[in-house]
Amino acid sequence: MQSFMQHNPTRLWFGHEQIGQLKQELGNKGKRVLLVYGGGSIKKNRVYNAVLSELEQMEAEVIELSGVEPNPRLTTVHKGIDICRQEKVDFILAVGGGSVIDCVKAISVGVYYNGDVWDIITRKASVEQALPFGTVLTLAATGSEMNNISVITNWEMNEKRGWASPLAYPAFSILDPSYTYSVPLDQTVYGIVDMMSHVLEQYFHRTEHVPMMDRFMESVLLTIMEAAPDLIREPDNFDLRATIMYAGTTAFNGLLSSGTDGGDWASHQIEHGLSAVYDIPHGGGLGIIFPNWMSHCAEEDPSRMKLLAIRVFQVDPSGKSDKAIALEGIAALREFWNSLGAPSRLADYNIDSSRLDELVEKSFMKPQVGSYKIMTRDTVRDILIRSM
Amino acid sequence: MQSFMQHNPTRLWFGHEQIGQLKQELGNKGKRVLLVYGGGSIKKNRVYNAVLSELEQMEAEVIELSGVEPNPRLTTVHKGIDICRQEKVDFILAVGGGSVIDCVKAISVGVYYNGDVWDIITRKASVEQALPFGTVLTLAATGSEMNNISVITNWEMNEKRGWASPLAYPAFSILDPSYTYSVPLDQTVYGIVDMMSHVLEQYFHRTEHVPMMDRFMESVLLTIMEAAPDLIREPDNFDLRATIMYAGTTAFNGLLSSGTDGGDWASHQIEHGLSAVYDIPHGGGLGIIFPNWMSHCAEEDPSRMKLLAIRVFQVDPSGKSDKAIALEGIAALREFWNSLGAPSRLADYNIDSSRLDELVEKSFMKPQVGSYKIMTRDTVRDILIRSM
Repeated sequence: MQSFMQHNPTRLWFGHEQIGQLKQELGNKGKRVLLVYGGGSIKKNRVYNAVLSELEQMEAEVIELSGVEPNPRLTTVHKGIDICRQEKVDFILAVGGGSVIDCVKAISVGVYYNGDVWDIITRKASVEQALPFGTVLTLAATGSEMNNISVITNWEMNEKRGWASPLAYPAFSILDPSYTYSVPLDQTVYGIVDMMSHVLEQYFHRTEHVPMMDRFMESVLLTIMEAAPDLIREPDNFDLRATIMYAGTTAFNGLLSSGTDGGDWASHQIEHGLSAVYDIPHGGGLGIIFPNWMSHCAEEDPSRMKLLAIRVFQVDPSGKSDKAIALEGIAALREFWNSLGAPSRLADYNIDSSRLDELVEKSFMKPQVGSYKIMTRDTVRDILIRSM
Repeated sequence: MQSFMQHNPTRLWFGHEQIGQLKQELGNKGKRVLLVYGGGSIKKNRVYNAVLSELEQMEAEVIELSGVEPNPRLTTVHKGIDICRQEKVDFILAVGGGSVIDCVKAISVGVYYNGDVWDIITRKASVEQALPFGTVLTLAATGSEMNNISVITNWEMNEKRGWASPLAYPAFSILDPSYTYSVPLDQTVYGIVDMMSHVLEQYFHRTEHVPMMDRFMESVLLTIMEAAPDLIREPDNFDLRATIMYAGTTAFNGLLSSGTDGGDWASHQIEHGLSAVYDIPHGGGLGIIFPNWMSHCAEEDPSRMKLLAIRVFQVDPSGKSDKAIALEGIAALREFWNSLGAPSRLADYNIDSSRLDELVEKSFMKPQVGSYKIMTRDTVRDILIRSM
């Protein structure tokens, strides 16, 4: 086990009608609130009205920024920073999924930075101060509601970059599973693939003697896999939405990598390259890339894939080679995601090999890609070709 | 799933030589530090010197309170409160196991209370303010290092009472597994029984649809059961000590009961009665009471004991009644604890039925005992008789 520090500053309010906590959480902080949301789906369900009603009761001045994109763009972050400065905003409230929250994180740290926030996102500048923000989650997927990580896309440069800061945790997050009833089927599935991928990235670590973390990660995967097929059939089931929503948060709030090296994350880097070029859904891209990354890596060292196959996919190991066990588990993972309706090949998004070189290059936005296996341009190319 | 709020304010520093974090954590807060410890075992290993050396580098004024008892006493809490007031202490540092930490929690809330701190412990008064404190853990058992719970014994009244306050979380806890190398075998075993009992108490909840919490609890139990027998053979193995230490913290830091009704806790109430009268080790008492509580309850409703038997003790359910499966699991739990060297009957502590009425009465320090099954004096008596 490695040394670690465990502490998550986000207060998580989970359950039916927890929106009532908004007043207490904002208290005297939020007198001029920037309300940030996406394409307006929160106006079709009751979330927008519920939030506004709470803010009105507090007599907060509300300024709105809507239209945050599914892969949130630097231009939108700039817009938010300008509004915060002009309107003297003292609190930002993200209402939406991971994209909205990621966008708000970048606005929050950009407000006090004397330069282009892209410097922070590309790690050229560090964060000294941030405007406080909270979230009301409407999509179970990224875990951004309880971590300090954000991903922003710069379309001028075709770059999608992840960044983090100790100052980028939400002060609070309100998770009411019923707010996710109206999430369309495809987005629900992408969310499930995304949260499972977060667990899998962390599962592919190289740290010995972290048995509880391994079991915790397996628990999250097993729980999601048990609930997901039922949820697809019953999208308005509170308990199933609750299970998936809490799993998504737990999958990526720091708990699961306590004491480990943090995991691999090459599949995420490769997917970031993909959706920087083609703007496909993150969960859709991951569902295609991840099993191919696994089968690529299992050729050299199938040990962790084998453990996963036995403990999560109930593969019977008797009389089989490690690699055969691993491949059986990988096939079961792919089959599970496909059974939910996730795409299995890049061709499903009309992506062929015509921009392969560019995709490889866009995967290398960080100096090192992967840690379970350190990727080269050749190995990334192999994984992308397997995914075509 | 029930609604819940998830947030733990304690900063947990885990790993080899994390004592170096003390300076950063105390910062400008700790200029006059009350150092609290137990029977002096920290002077026999290197912990006392390591802590003092850090405090000296900070030029902190150090006042000592030693001799905190294994079941910490109200008289010692009073002594600590007096010292804090007289010496104008601004920070308390607990160095020890759960007893020392529990004692410090009571001192911390008692300093600012204008009356006997026993009022707070018996819930007649509420906590308005607390002196900040941190911990350096030397015994893996109670989980007190990352929760807001404390248990104090009033020997004048033969009462052992648990209490909690939102202000009773440690500001930080430093967990270096090597600090537990010198813990004697019996105390190591009692600690293991204690932490497993914390998980089991929470496992016996009545909340539907909390599949991830159930799996997390099973994960903690499986991890402990895998590591414990090896640790008994190799008490100086860092990784095994680390696994058990982290399991003890996770067993009782709030995570495992997120969204549940919190679990049963009758076995703890009955054990508190036992050790209020006989001053036996808490873990020793629990190891005797808990399986008998389980077999008592399984007669009416074996559902949770059955799940535990199958998932944690790998009992093959085929062709067996629910009750038979449950009892097989309970027998396996008892056998596991006995195999580590924990006592199996109250007779092992020379406790017979001569003070049975008093033991029953002392179990009812709270208006309700148990929630999976609400206890009466008759059912507690039955469990105690089974335990003789």
